[in-house]
Amino acid sequence: MAVEDRPKPALQGPGDAIIKMVKTTICGTDLHILKGDLATCKPGRVLGHEGIGIVDSVGAGVLTFKPGDRVMISCVSSCGKCEYCRRGMYSHCTTGGWILGNEIDGTQAEFVRTPHAETSLYPIPAGADEEALVMLSDILPTGFECGVLNGKVAPGANVAIVGAGPIGLAALLTAQLFSPARIIMVDLDDNRLEVAKRFGATDVVNSADGKGAEKIKAMTENRGVDTAIEAVGIGATFQICQDIVAPGGVIANIGVHGKMVNLHLEKLWSRNISITTRLVDTVTTPMLLKTVQAKTIDPTKLITHRFTMEKILDAYDTFGRAAQTKALKVIIEF
Amino acid sequence: MAVEDRPKPALQGPGDAIIKMVKTTICGTDLHILKGDLATCKPGRVLGHEGIGIVDSVGAGVLTFKPGDRVMISCVSSCGKCEYCRRGMYSHCTTGGWILGNEIDGTQAEFVRTPHAETSLYPIPAGADEEALVMLSDILPTGFECGVLNGKVAPGANVAIVGAGPIGLAALLTAQLFSPARIIMVDLDDNRLEVAKRFGATDVVNSADGKGAEKIKAMTENRGVDTAIEAVGIGATFQICQDIVAPGGVIANIGVHGKMVNLHLEKLWSRNISITTRLVDTVTTPMLLKTVQAKTIDPTKLITHRFTMEKILDAYDTFGRAAQTKALKVIIEF
Amino acid sequence: MAVEDRPKPALQGPGDAIIKMVKTTICGTDLHILKGDLATCKPGRVLGHEGIGIVDSVGAGVLTFKPGDRVMISCVSSCGKCEYCRRGMYSHCTTGGWILGNEIDGTQAEFVRTPHAETSLYPIPAGADEEALVMLSDILPTGFECGVLNGKVAPGANVAIVGAGPIGLAALLTAQLFSPARIIMVDLDDNRLEVAKRFGATDVVNSADGKGAEKIKAMTENRGVDTAIEAVGIGATFQICQDIVAPGGVIANIGVHGKMVNLHLEKLWSRNISITTRLVDTVTTPMLLKTVQAKTIDPTKLITHRFTMEKILDAYDTFGRAAQTKALKVIIEF
Amino acid sequence: MAVEDRPKPALQGPGDAIIKMVKTTICGTDLHILKGDLATCKPGRVLGHEGIGIVDSVGAGVLTFKPGDRVMISCVSSCGKCEYCRRGMYSHCTTGGWILGNEIDGTQAEFVRTPHAETSLYPIPAGADEEALVMLSDILPTGFECGVLNGKVAPGANVAIVGAGPIGLAALLTAQLFSPARIIMVDLDDNRLEVAKRFGATDVVNSADGKGAEKIKAMTENRGVDTAIEAVGIGATFQICQDIVAPGGVIANIGVHGKMVNLHLEKLWSRNISITTRLVDTVTTPMLLKTVQAKTIDPTKLITHRFTMEKILDAYDTFGRAAQTKALKVIIEF
Repeated sequence: MAVEDRPKPALQGPGDAIIKMVKTTICGTDLHILKGDLATCKPGRVLGHEGIGIVDSVGAGVLTFKPGDRVMISCVSSCGKCEYCRRGMYSHCTTGGWILGNEIDGTQAEFVRTPHAETSLYPIPAGADEEALVMLSDILPTGFECGVLNGKVAPGANVAIVGAGPIGLAALLTAQLFSPARIIMVDLDDNRLEVAKRFGATDVVNSADGKGAEKIKAMTENRGVDTAIEAVGIGATFQICQDIVAPGGVIANIGVHGKMVNLHLEKLWSRNISITTRLVDTVTTPMLLKTVQAKTIDPTKLITHRFTMEKILDAYDTFGRAAQTKALKVIIEF
Repeated sequence: MAVEDRPKPALQGPGDAIIKMVKTTICGTDLHILKGDLATCKPGRVLGHEGIGIVDSVGAGVLTFKPGDRVMISCVSSCGKCEYCRRGMYSHCTTGGWILGNEIDGTQAEFVRTPHAETSLYPIPAGADEEALVMLSDILPTGFECGVLNGKVAPGANVAIVGAGPIGLAALLTAQLFSPARIIMVDLDDNRLEVAKRFGATDVVNSADGKGAEKIKAMTENRGVDTAIEAVGIGATFQICQDIVAPGGVIANIGVHGKMVNLHLEKLWSRNISITTRLVDTVTTPMLLKTVQAKTIDPTKLITHRFTMEKILDAYDTFGRAAQTKALKVIIEF
Repeated sequence: MAVEDRPKPALQGPGDAIIKMVKTTICGTDLHILKGDLATCKPGRVLGHEGIGIVDSVGAGVLTFKPGDRVMISCVSSCGKCEYCRRGMYSHCTTGGWILGNEIDGTQAEFVRTPHAETSLYPIPAGADEEALVMLSDILPTGFECGVLNGKVAPGANVAIVGAGPIGLAALLTAQLFSPARIIMVDLDDNRLEVAKRFGATDVVNSADGKGAEKIKAMTENRGVDTAIEAVGIGATFQICQDIVAPGGVIANIGVHGKMVNLHLEKLWSRNISITTRLVDTVTTPMLLKTVQAKTIDPTKLITHRFTMEKILDAYDTFGRAAQTKALKVIIEF
Repeated sequence: MAVEDRPKPALQGPGDAIIKMVKTTICGTDLHILKGDLATCKPGRVLGHEGIGIVDSVGAGVLTFKPGDRVMISCVSSCGKCEYCRRGMYSHCTTGGWILGNEIDGTQAEFVRTPHAETSLYPIPAGADEEALVMLSDILPTGFECGVLNGKVAPGANVAIVGAGPIGLAALLTAQLFSPARIIMVDLDDNRLEVAKRFGATDVVNSADGKGAEKIKAMTENRGVDTAIEAVGIGATFQICQDIVAPGGVIANIGVHGKMVNLHLEKLWSRNISITTRLVDTVTTPMLLKTVQAKTIDPTKLITHRFTMEKILDAYDTFGRAAQTKALKVIIEF
């Protein structure tokens, strides 16, 4: 991890844009990359797949943006043309997907090249809170699409979210769009559970004693929950989800898993449940933008720290020691 | 396993009916019970949860059936009143579900008591082929609901069904209601694959060499299938389904699993897939009945042998040695 | 309209219950009946299809309720057995539907006979606000099912509700379960529009000048609304809905219409819209009950006046002169 | 109507392609235009919005097609970028929609300019029947999307299609993808009804005596149909649909209406029905292409006549006198 001088990126295709960054942030995935967990990301890569900026230049095929436009950058690049894009599965775009700060240089730099600009950038509405929009690049649609939509969160339902980190909290914020009767937040860290309560959890469960599932069953008349959202990415939390999902319910996986898990089909085969996985498609970004503009959701709640770009190593340090620093999302300003 | 004289069952509640059996059959689950795999089913139980018969008597609360009516008996008893029944999840009826030939005496007897008669029996239309309707008690709705509907089989889609036993073949027959472009049938037994071809499979794959998934990937330009239906109930077949499901696809589990399986979330977390489980609800029975009456599906194709009730031990023997006898479903007549 | 002594109703079938009324209310439909608008309702009928009470006696087939139980009475009687009930269309139950206070005597009396009791009564949870539950008999599920669910109200969407009477306001309250960005309330009466603002409308439009549609188009960048809910039942309000529905939108009709209306298919044929109609099925009553218990919705906001049963004629007078009395829903206590 | 020499069209934007036509056809809408019914289409316009051809040249932004590629031209031009395109409503594309042969010159010419080429052309698979693919430009997706999908045609359902012209027959062919129990075809012309029978209608009704609705009610035990597809575009046929739609059913309008119609909300308000309208989006074109390639549908059944481009005026004459010539679709070859 180092801060380096690099040449300003250049347009490479007719659909590209070059964006001068204004604000970016750090994602848990960036930490994974730094540990070497992501084979697709090669050494030397500029990290970052979130942020807002100003259009600096555009390719010949870009008609809907022009230099000077303020834009929000989606973490997923979508061509809008391939079979997957046409089905709303932008994450599987055959010439895009999550490539920013992974397969190509990303947003933690003064300038970034964004391919498929017309279908991967969003104009910032006049008067919008630009820090709020940084949360729309990735974390809010991830919590919403992979957790809330896949989990079929519904009015009157019981929901449990296992993991109260930034992504679990993004699921918590967006789950409230569908007015479930109960949102039970599960974590090992009482501080995060406190935060969860302030963000709208109706109940919190510390599962450090290994009795998380048991407590949730007790809270739901032994029935379990309609939606169990996995927001960690390990076997133990996926197991809690299996233990608490009610007949007819859904386990919606958000967590990035590094290992296989045990699936107890000998219990679940007859329980009429679904398990879903998803890499965020950002197909709901326009809708979430309207919701943020209408002040139905306030994603700035997730922002705990602010740094200038010069201090980005401090930002990584603060974000990397979240248990001590209580960091959720950090804003980095250029 | 024995044939015994038992007293004629009596009405126990206002919603009961006593049915004089006309035809029944044997299910793979009956063999599981005989091996002692099912803890809910106690020794001495009369087996059987399928068949047609004639109403002999009804409880005080039964208004829509009367003695003499010819009826098809659903494998699932549904009260029509509890939360699960009202949501269409009859299999989880709080006072019913799959109890016939399991928790209470079943249909492989001259008479059977059926609880929740009004919502668990179906009138046989005049002129209907009664053997066809025996297939509507369990196997056809199971293949259709757990495999085809859960698997979201759609026009133009690629479907693979792993397991070409009676239940996989029932999924094959009912999958055609949605006109997929391709139905690939996978099994270890070439005879069953031949049958599958006659029943409408567009492709067959013998996976005995351990290369089933590889072959299916090759057949689908390395993309995999939109729907993978698991119709066996073991880890190896569930693994094939994980290997062949395309991004955005569904693994629909029908198989009764005795052990946990490995779930490769380290590969699947980002593939936008769903895994579904289900005990048949028989909520589609009225629709399937119309489809059979319209001759869109011919479930009598599944019937390979016929026995009288006196010869039921022979029927079990024939059905139990399916690999040699090529038995699919056997009809037992009273 | 008269208050009369009548004999206490008796059980007529095994599924009946006799309920001693505790609270009831008056519906706009009751006024229609008094004007002679409803051919199905014969002179001499006891009106009323809403309320809560105490079970007095039950028929032989009723197992889930017993004398002394406190229950909420659904306006729709549902057998739970017929094809329509099994599809969740209780309003079209072949032996039920909306018959209370219409085809059979209703709830504005000391005792009422409720057919299909097990599937038409709901137990009152301990500690529930019983006045709130009176709103669950009809008005809340009507606004929710016919307006909000049929109208596909969604997070971030633009919604207009044409008519701010009790039923339009019930749609307004329940629409918020899905967090639309904007709810525009349309009426001729400024008082009702004031109430609508307090109930959560983001915008209000007085359409008395005939420019309602024009104003709404102006508010939505000439695009129109995703959901237009018709809550009056006349041609003029249905016309506003046609004028304001955006491409891809829905017109969800709640209003009881006495005459045919003009449908401008010459404009709408190419606009990808839907028009829906519905008699409330009360299939969402259990969900709404959870939502009320969770305090996500407070339906007592709709209650403006309270009367004892002795004063029911005053209650009718107050409810019938709503423009002057500002009555929404009136509670009548026994 | 005249055949004229025109200059070869030129590329106008980076997303354009010039296509050398190979086969085209005539649509009923072309006849409407010739009568002056379509205000958007100015005199002098080259008509035609269907056909297949060979890419002649492409704009700078077109990467997925190159000169020499054989392509099918969609009747709808879709940018793939605007809000409507991203929602799958290509017909409402803010810079496209149905403009070919309407707002810009069309396909009944040696060369045609197609805007938004990457998202409005489809590569022709090797070995495909190119005449079949001409039916995919418009008529097959129109029947399928506006009639079958909007109409929620389902296995076991009762369907009526009012109007047995080419578009009604396209609905008939594609409705069979969902295996309804019954498809009742309604027309005034016995010849067309004969064709409908050969195409898979289970029943036909000649409504010339004004008793069409009555006959259909009699055929369905007075219940009506689950799906009524309007494929004419006049008040009388829309009225039949209102008369025959069963509770819970859908009226799916395909017809191009020139006048408003009467909507009998005084009867329909309580019947839980939907009415849908749609200009074809061609969002199902890839799926229909797979279905045609799999030989599940054979759209060449619709082709009754073939002409060379020199004889296009004869083609118009034959197509325009369909009652006498029995023309359905005519192929015009270059």
